[in-house]
Amino acid sequence: MTSLGLLAGALTTGCWLPQLLRSWRTRSTDDISWTYLALLGTGIVLWLAYGLLSGDLALIAANGVTLLFITTIAGMKSRETARPRVADPSADTLAGP
Amino acid sequence: MTSLGLLAGALTTGCWLPQLLRSWRTRSTDDISWTYLALLGTGIVLWLAYGLLSGDLALIAANGVTLLFITTIAGMKSRETARPRVADPSADTLAGP
Repeated sequence: MTSLGLLAGALTTGCWLPQLLRSWRTRSTDDISWTYLALLGTGIVLWLAYGLLSGDLALIAANGVTLLFITTIAGMKSRETARPRVADPSADTLAGP
Repeated sequence: MTSLGLLAGALTTGCWLPQLLRSWRTRSTDDISWTYLALLGTGIVLWLAYGLLSGDLALIAANGVTLLFITTIAGMKSRETARPRVADPSADTLAGP
């Protein structure tokens, strides 16, 4: 039984790797909204607590690692949001004083 | 205890709503890779089986609804992939015979 849970966890946690690598490679987390990260992060913390309280190894392992991934993406996103956006030169803006 | 799991599930499942609505509104699922959907979908099915076998209501409810969301996004993505891409008129392509 636990192995089924561990396999499920490995997949749902592992599915974050392509997204994590894509965000890392493209330096863009634009399509991952803060709402999504906040909801998911809170839910994962609660699943982790639920796993700890029920002593469910599969839940603890899966949600522990997923939490690590999510905090990494959130870190990238906050650094990206802090970085000044380069104005798009092709956009024809009225050059004023 | 179950209420903790149900709350966790409501959050991790609910977090798919902004992503689902965004994909629906923008008609674009480009930033959700097939690898991600395939890994996640398989993992969620296994979590559902794990929940059914252990009689865990929170796991069953959360993963049942999440599976519904994921299949909806996959449906949008497959229709989008099937739709012919409109060539970008501004791209200066060599007009051939």
